Amino acid sequence: MREIQHCWVLNHYASDKLRGTELRLVKRPVPQLSKGQVLVKTLILSLDPSNRIWLSEEEDYLPQLQIGDVMRGLIIGQVEQSCHPDFNVGDYVHALLGWQEYAVVDGDTLTSMNGAIRFTPHPEIPLDAYVSALGLTGWTAYVGLKEIGQLNPSDNLMVSGAAGATGLMACQLGKVMDARVVGIAGGEEKCHWLEANLGIDGSIDYKTTDNLSESMARAFPDGIDVFFDNVGGTMLDAALENMAIGGRIVVSGSISQYQKLGDRSQLYGVQNTHLMVTRRLRMEGYLILDYLDQIDKILPEMEQWLLDKKIQYKNTEVIGLQNAQKALPRLFSGQNTGKLIIKIE
Amino acid sequence: MREIQHCWVLNHYASDKLRGTELRLVKRPVPQLSKGQVLVKTLILSLDPSNRIWLSEEEDYLPQLQIGDVMRGLIIGQVEQSCHPDFNVGDYVHALLGWQEYAVVDGDTLTSMNGAIRFTPHPEIPLDAYVSALGLTGWTAYVGLKEIGQLNPSDNLMVSGAAGATGLMACQLGKVMDARVVGIAGGEEKCHWLEANLGIDGSIDYKTTDNLSESMARAFPDGIDVFFDNVGGTMLDAALENMAIGGRIVVSGSISQYQKLGDRSQLYGVQNTHLMVTRRLRMEGYLILDYLDQIDKILPEMEQWLLDKKIQYKNTEVIGLQNAQKALPRLFSGQNTGKLIIKIE
Repeated sequence: MREIQHCWVLNHYASDKLRGTELRLVKRPVPQLSKGQVLVKTLILSLDPSNRIWLSEEEDYLPQLQIGDVMRGLIIGQVEQSCHPDFNVGDYVHALLGWQEYAVVDGDTLTSMNGAIRFTPHPEIPLDAYVSALGLTGWTAYVGLKEIGQLNPSDNLMVSGAAGATGLMACQLGKVMDARVVGIAGGEEKCHWLEANLGIDGSIDYKTTDNLSESMARAFPDGIDVFFDNVGGTMLDAALENMAIGGRIVVSGSISQYQKLGDRSQLYGVQNTHLMVTRRLRMEGYLILDYLDQIDKILPEMEQWLLDKKIQYKNTEVIGLQNAQKALPRLFSGQNTGKLIIKIE
Repeated sequence: MREIQHCWVLNHYASDKLRGTELRLVKRPVPQLSKGQVLVKTLILSLDPSNRIWLSEEEDYLPQLQIGDVMRGLIIGQVEQSCHPDFNVGDYVHALLGWQEYAVVDGDTLTSMNGAIRFTPHPEIPLDAYVSALGLTGWTAYVGLKEIGQLNPSDNLMVSGAAGATGLMACQLGKVMDARVVGIAGGEEKCHWLEANLGIDGSIDYKTTDNLSESMARAFPDGIDVFFDNVGGTMLDAALENMAIGGRIVVSGSISQYQKLGDRSQLYGVQNTHLMVTRRLRMEGYLILDYLDQIDKILPEMEQWLLDKKIQYKNTEVIGLQNAQKALPRLFSGQNTGKLIIKIE
């Protein structure tokens, strides 16, 4: 263990597009442990669309970051020192901690808050998988389809941002749950990859379609039963026009809107909400942090699917905490496929 | 029974604002009964925002009206002749029939489809009440709050279109269910009436407020738990900004948008759907026609509330079928308070 560590701290709030100056890399001492505390070494930092929300001044579902605070982030870490009876050196944790090399936290907090889940990696599964398919990303897809979307076998499922981290999990889990799955992604390459590698039933390339709503209508002649939406904006609006009676819209994210939160006039206006009534639609947003009590049940099932090759994961790996800020905008530019992670050296 | 009756038939589809030429009053023979059929005399015709949807060419939740078809409408009627074993002369029915003096329908259809419910008016309750508080309007409010909104005692409930037919029922039922109720209506007079006569906890006059969202924030310092929305558009958008974590939006209607269905560019764009995720919101549309199997349970409870003066009804009555088309636009101009009905002479 080192005495000095690197941390990314908030330099200024993000207003529209990320400028790459919102965070500042600083050196800080690694604090000493007090009774009941645990020292967690960050192994993998997960980059997520929610990072953009946490950087904005309007953030409202978690305590707002203050200038100088360590940037909030999901990590996979390992306990390096423990003054808490429930944690042993070497334990692995999922936790909502920060963009830093080490975190000192109360062990009680770690088990009950902050998205923390202690886990033991399966000996045949790489640790990487636990930050994507078998981490909050995968759980988000699972809970979204099962609990929120009430997905039934043979339902028509549409997934937006299908080549993104959560999207590709929703596509795969949709297939495992016996739905007919069509994914929306940007570019022929991504669409081809989705169909060829994930075995989904069809794809829509939003970059080349003239009319998104008509493309959806062609892909879903009987309407969409469940729309797993990571994107919001135009995708959501076009989907509303194509929902089946009694359809469910699982609002996992609105990535198309997060860069616009600083300037309301830029936000896309969804015109088809009036269809909620006549089509009897349900649209529901959720955060996986509210469902962590179910993970003990979900994780073994998902590990087995991975071992059986029913699902796979795809991470885009960036090495070194110092490269985290530079990597973040990839989530919003459509460049990225799969889960974007930072491996801490 | 007469041999010739008056009917309103579709003359042309409505495109934007109602012109008063969409329907044409014609004389048609009253058909003879065949076996299994029932002759229903229309007593009261209910005018509803959904009439505007049925008049439009985009209508998609019921078979589309064709030019020359009798206009669809909710009625209270009485069986005048019966060739069906389950119906007796004198029986009262709620039914989705038409803007006409007499309808001949299959008795089997009448009990299972078309929103038809046979009922026996309580001897101390006027028949009028069964087209508003104790009819589909009241049931819509009841099911919306209980089933869709999952309203809990002490929840903060906001109702838009609060002085309208469904809105004033949602306000009253909200109070019966022990919620704190704030209604939105247009004009000081309506707002005063809501607070003084219905005993709700507060009101917002959307016509005089500079900023709807800020008015909501003042009325709901702890956020809105349930928003019962009849209006859509700007109301929905401002409400999204003020929902509490885990809030429910009950989409009963989108009356502000129905006149714009013919020209998509006129539809209001809701910009705050991205808040569905961070606030964990559920928004759900529904039609009371899907819940008719619950009415046997709901109706006696509501009758008792009316007898106990816990709820009241307010109808605006227009006499004569010939005045129906002229009366309809009142629903969209904000002139109307309470339930707009046509008494058939």
